[in-house]
Amino acid sequence: MTNEHDRNPLYAKVEAALAADISARILAPDSQLPPEDRLIERFGVSRTTVRKAVENLVARGLVEIRRGKGTFVAQPKVTQELTELTGFVEDMRALGRTPTARLLDRQVVPADADVARQLAVPLGSLVMRIQRVRLADGVAMSFDETYLPREIGEKVVTHDLDAEPIFSLLEDKYDLPLTEAEYRLEAITAAPEVAQALAIEPGGAVFLIERTSYAAGHRPVDYEKLHYRGDLISFVTRLGRRPRERS
Amino acid sequence: MTNEHDRNPLYAKVEAALAADISARILAPDSQLPPEDRLIERFGVSRTTVRKAVENLVARGLVEIRRGKGTFVAQPKVTQELTELTGFVEDMRALGRTPTARLLDRQVVPADADVARQLAVPLGSLVMRIQRVRLADGVAMSFDETYLPREIGEKVVTHDLDAEPIFSLLEDKYDLPLTEAEYRLEAITAAPEVAQALAIEPGGAVFLIERTSYAAGHRPVDYEKLHYRGDLISFVTRLGRRPRERS
Repeated sequence: MTNEHDRNPLYAKVEAALAADISARILAPDSQLPPEDRLIERFGVSRTTVRKAVENLVARGLVEIRRGKGTFVAQPKVTQELTELTGFVEDMRALGRTPTARLLDRQVVPADADVARQLAVPLGSLVMRIQRVRLADGVAMSFDETYLPREIGEKVVTHDLDAEPIFSLLEDKYDLPLTEAEYRLEAITAAPEVAQALAIEPGGAVFLIERTSYAAGHRPVDYEKLHYRGDLISFVTRLGRRPRERS
Repeated sequence: MTNEHDRNPLYAKVEAALAADISARILAPDSQLPPEDRLIERFGVSRTTVRKAVENLVARGLVEIRRGKGTFVAQPKVTQELTELTGFVEDMRALGRTPTARLLDRQVVPADADVARQLAVPLGSLVMRIQRVRLADGVAMSFDETYLPREIGEKVVTHDLDAEPIFSLLEDKYDLPLTEAEYRLEAITAAPEVAQALAIEPGGAVFLIERTSYAAGHRPVDYEKLHYRGDLISFVTRLGRRPRERS
């Protein structure tokens, strides 16, 4: 059923064998991949085949190239539930990780078309923009841009945003319990300034979440663009099938 | 509140102005972006600044570089609900698009660790793998790998898989109504063979959905890896906030 020219070529076998070693932790996270010559010898294949297998492992996020150092087994991705509205601090604590934040910038800016629509304010009206890097166990996981209506925003930024989650401030300090959020999920590649904030190469995969959170009365109070490192996170959910009419 | 050295630099203003033109369809989908010299003149900025702005528009998927042709305004992304278990044909029809498929390969293969776990079969046991490109209005949207338990798979592949959706075959032909599915969502970059199937450059953004669909009795009957073109699709959903205990 298989031959040399089918869609299970040699590189796919090398790739699968290395993926299995990584999955079984025979190749542990952060360990260096064996050198090309060793892989050529072990699998009895050409350098081209080994390179193609490793390229695919990089694309799958199982191994990563560290510039000037070599190719290393990546840390397994964080698996995060996407089943209810939660903030980064809540998410990381639920996963047993220590969340921190690094405030990059906060300033009043005019609302562009997206921000105006999401926060239901006039185009060009002033809103608060907060830019932060969010870390888990000291590793930058996400570059977040948060837009708040100006009045709430001016209050929120009086707090230490490296330490206090914005959701907590909104809910506990300013009596704006959140009720729900609308999410938009996209796969993009990292623009230079996002790459810089996340300390990754430009062009790396980014899982972008645009999220508008609402308080009572469907009042939009928080619009965020969350740029997660694609190589560090995956999201899981469960969906039901709509009951069918039998034909 | 702003100055020349803040986080609203010149390229961001050029980027925002062009994004606004695209959003307002002053720059229509598939139209070519004005040449660099014209943008330099219009905005009174340097070539470097124009290039950085355009780079960011590419990363955001608003414009795309067509090799040897120039830079064009991208088609707006398809927005797909992620709220219940649906197949590609159902999804595209709901969006008013015409779904088609191109069968690349179908063959019996040994289950790797992922496939074995998802379909609840022994590692290395034989399963059916079906590889297809899924198109909407003739444009390749997704490269799908579908794994089916061998017995069901052998029946499914007797049908014309360019024309008949696998969900329909399972549900209508083989009396396996689906009940729910588990989803894993990731952002990755396109490995060479995925890029080839989707006719994009390797390294492009891919929205990867791994989905295991279940029939009655939580019986896994279909495990899929859906590689969507990141520049063509976004997924939307709504999530509620868990009711809080007031402190």
